[in-house]
Amino acid sequence: MSAHSLEDIIQQEGNIVNRLRNSKIGMYVYPVVAPEFANWRDEQRAWRESAVLFDQSHHMDELIVEGPQATEFLAYHGINGFGNFDLNRAKHYVPVTPAGHVIGDHIIFREDEQKYVLVGRAPTSDWLLFCAAYGKWNVRIKHDPRSPSRPEGERVLRTHYRFQIQGPEANKIFTEMNGAPIPDIKFFHVDWINIGGKKVQALRHGMSGAPGLEIWGPYEDKSYILNAILEAAKKAGVDLVRCGSRAYSTNTLESGWIPSPLPGIYTGDGMMKAYREWLGPESYEASGAIGGSFVSDNIEDYYVNPFELGYDFYIGWKKDDFIGKEALLKMKEQPQRKKVTFEWNAEDVVNVIASAFKPGEDHYKWIDFPQPNYASSSADMVMQGDKMVGMSMFNGYSYNERCVLSLGVVDPDVEIGDVLTMKWGEPETTGKTSTEKHKQAEIRVRVSDTPYSTEARTNYADSWRTKASK
Amino acid sequence: MSAHSLEDIIQQEGNIVNRLRNSKIGMYVYPVVAPEFANWRDEQRAWRESAVLFDQSHHMDELIVEGPQATEFLAYHGINGFGNFDLNRAKHYVPVTPAGHVIGDHIIFREDEQKYVLVGRAPTSDWLLFCAAYGKWNVRIKHDPRSPSRPEGERVLRTHYRFQIQGPEANKIFTEMNGAPIPDIKFFHVDWINIGGKKVQALRHGMSGAPGLEIWGPYEDKSYILNAILEAAKKAGVDLVRCGSRAYSTNTLESGWIPSPLPGIYTGDGMMKAYREWLGPESYEASGAIGGSFVSDNIEDYYVNPFELGYDFYIGWKKDDFIGKEALLKMKEQPQRKKVTFEWNAEDVVNVIASAFKPGEDHYKWIDFPQPNYASSSADMVMQGDKMVGMSMFNGYSYNERCVLSLGVVDPDVEIGDVLTMKWGEPETTGKTSTEKHKQAEIRVRVSDTPYSTEARTNYADSWRTKASK
Repeated sequence: MSAHSLEDIIQQEGNIVNRLRNSKIGMYVYPVVAPEFANWRDEQRAWRESAVLFDQSHHMDELIVEGPQATEFLAYHGINGFGNFDLNRAKHYVPVTPAGHVIGDHIIFREDEQKYVLVGRAPTSDWLLFCAAYGKWNVRIKHDPRSPSRPEGERVLRTHYRFQIQGPEANKIFTEMNGAPIPDIKFFHVDWINIGGKKVQALRHGMSGAPGLEIWGPYEDKSYILNAILEAAKKAGVDLVRCGSRAYSTNTLESGWIPSPLPGIYTGDGMMKAYREWLGPESYEASGAIGGSFVSDNIEDYYVNPFELGYDFYIGWKKDDFIGKEALLKMKEQPQRKKVTFEWNAEDVVNVIASAFKPGEDHYKWIDFPQPNYASSSADMVMQGDKMVGMSMFNGYSYNERCVLSLGVVDPDVEIGDVLTMKWGEPETTGKTSTEKHKQAEIRVRVSDTPYSTEARTNYADSWRTKASK
Repeated sequence: MSAHSLEDIIQQEGNIVNRLRNSKIGMYVYPVVAPEFANWRDEQRAWRESAVLFDQSHHMDELIVEGPQATEFLAYHGINGFGNFDLNRAKHYVPVTPAGHVIGDHIIFREDEQKYVLVGRAPTSDWLLFCAAYGKWNVRIKHDPRSPSRPEGERVLRTHYRFQIQGPEANKIFTEMNGAPIPDIKFFHVDWINIGGKKVQALRHGMSGAPGLEIWGPYEDKSYILNAILEAAKKAGVDLVRCGSRAYSTNTLESGWIPSPLPGIYTGDGMMKAYREWLGPESYEASGAIGGSFVSDNIEDYYVNPFELGYDFYIGWKKDDFIGKEALLKMKEQPQRKKVTFEWNAEDVVNVIASAFKPGEDHYKWIDFPQPNYASSSADMVMQGDKMVGMSMFNGYSYNERCVLSLGVVDPDVEIGDVLTMKWGEPETTGKTSTEKHKQAEIRVRVSDTPYSTEARTNYADSWRTKASK
């Protein structure tokens, strides 16, 4: 019997973990944008040392939510407080399930009294599209799904272009572009600036303390805006480096946001079952891949909650109700895992790489540079002796730090500075096309703060990463 | 004064080597095709172990040469013998300068008495376009330049699609596709086969002894043909792996063809000067990049001749005349460098990589996997003690061989099995955007035959690559 929904698939296949770990969807790619404009090392360096231009036009879903109940609808389906959500402000919007598990996250912009724009991965857009229908809300939603992963020369259009300019020299470009110093926009607030002959919306953003703006507008203006930015950088004498798709996703390793938690929607009855019946067999949730050494029969073991990801300070406890409130109130009283950065031991990383130079021998899972992820959601076991004390969830090499880093969660009693062991690679050969056959390696990881970059600067002295310390 | 031609640039800038070594054109990319369909390790493995599907529709110029003098024109501008050039046959077409230096190469197909199709890099198409005008030949030429390197979502169209299917299991797909065993096409001959409801032209090709076909037709049929191939492979039970742009260019390391010799067109008077006046400032020849440790003030030191590349057996000595004949006759009497494969020492490669894990220290030139080239033409010094005895010209990691390989030329007295030292990385920081700042490394290389793969299988026993032998 052919499956018409995620729920059908679960009923037919039993263990959904098995399906996701054997997904044939391939790499989760950052599509359309060229792999490299310069080279990925210098593209990474640019956001630390000069300025970088990210083209974010293609890799995210966009949702426009409008209508008399837009605010009420969004407030009810996200954990965030909405009390201070003035016009021209943005938030990091996080929906959870009734059980309190994170579904995903979007950046949400309030454009008007009754109009919001949201951008991010599919799980949040899918959820909101479902909720609008399920709850009979008086909202209109326009969904612009992310660009195809492999367009192979076919034209790709979006509703909006979206650029981000970041780095210590970024302000010089903004001033040149705007014709005068830009307004003093507060973090995660939006204002209008001039780019060439156009007024565009700009969100004050920023990574690792460096100033940054995210700007967007109609997709047909993309070429004009891009060229105006490049010309402004030239006039300002700033080495603005365009960032390609290979380096793009690694920027989060230094800033500490985990883009890819597994949406906690595979379990639960009532609304959750209805959601799984609504989700098609080709949806992100039904076709995405889980990769990594952590294998559990219980899909819930891959879930995370807002406390673990450090999103608890967003929670709008004062709201009368929102989906997940009750569950989060209970969680609040319990000890929670915490988000950390794992700093991979250089010696162990180099040993893994060296194994790919031994003809006739099995080798460890190849660490692809700068982005070694091989699934939509990664889950690698982090061990203290025989005990799993953490889960590594998003990997990448940072040329700025000369180190492979990953983001994940650890048990409450794990401390910054602890040296743990990560299992790298999968215990068996899965059906995933995104990884070659390999054996598992052990890589020592040092638990570090998130965001990592600040912490790293103050702790360079001991240079643990490059010394053996078995 | 603005430059209107390559010749203007040379007059204005003096040393053209300096310009090309500082080109800002970026990586020489394999455009439009997705970076990976599966993962580049398994994509490489497929051409050795099952079957691979290359999409060659985008990375090559195509030239259609027609007219009463088509044969005469092409025979005069290439070194190849044309006596046996029957219909439905293909050749590896090599034009040289009057001084006998290789300009480039194309695959040339004879489609009709008066019609040829050529595909390959820009230097050969540019040269033929010029020659047709310069010599007042009675030919019509249609030029379809390769696809843009970074289309960023704009649609890309070509005249023809072009696929290649290779590997030990390829024949099963051909039979399934054709509805019966395909005709017994001789190597580099063309015949018609069935794909779905269409008859398409197929060139018998083959890499490392495995059977292969290259097929092409109108670009609008691309999607139909692609899907018919994939369905046939499925029916035939063959694991046909689509090869992405990251792995694509590395297939030549195992087969031994050097795709990127620097066109020998920067020197010479008369016709050559006229050519440089014809070539625009944005042409491949004027804007391309030279990368590598070999730096000479004399651009001619980067040139190669047909003897060095192993193309001397193509030469149509019986032809009355062709451009370069006189020079090649003289060269024939002199000792010549020879084409070899350099097998990079694993320990040295791993040391280079390990240097990228030492914060605060200078590092060696990053070896990007699987394709470390960072210029349109590569030239790395290969040393025997203090003496340069070879030039490494095209690099790549082979997952099949678990080894970085490069192709290049060595002095006549260098022997297979000799262990030489390659200088990896550039002596100074150039203007190239394709490489990060780095220091030079020394990498031991063992001189091996081309094609490498056959040789390797017979010489695995000593496993030199993975043992220290300083």
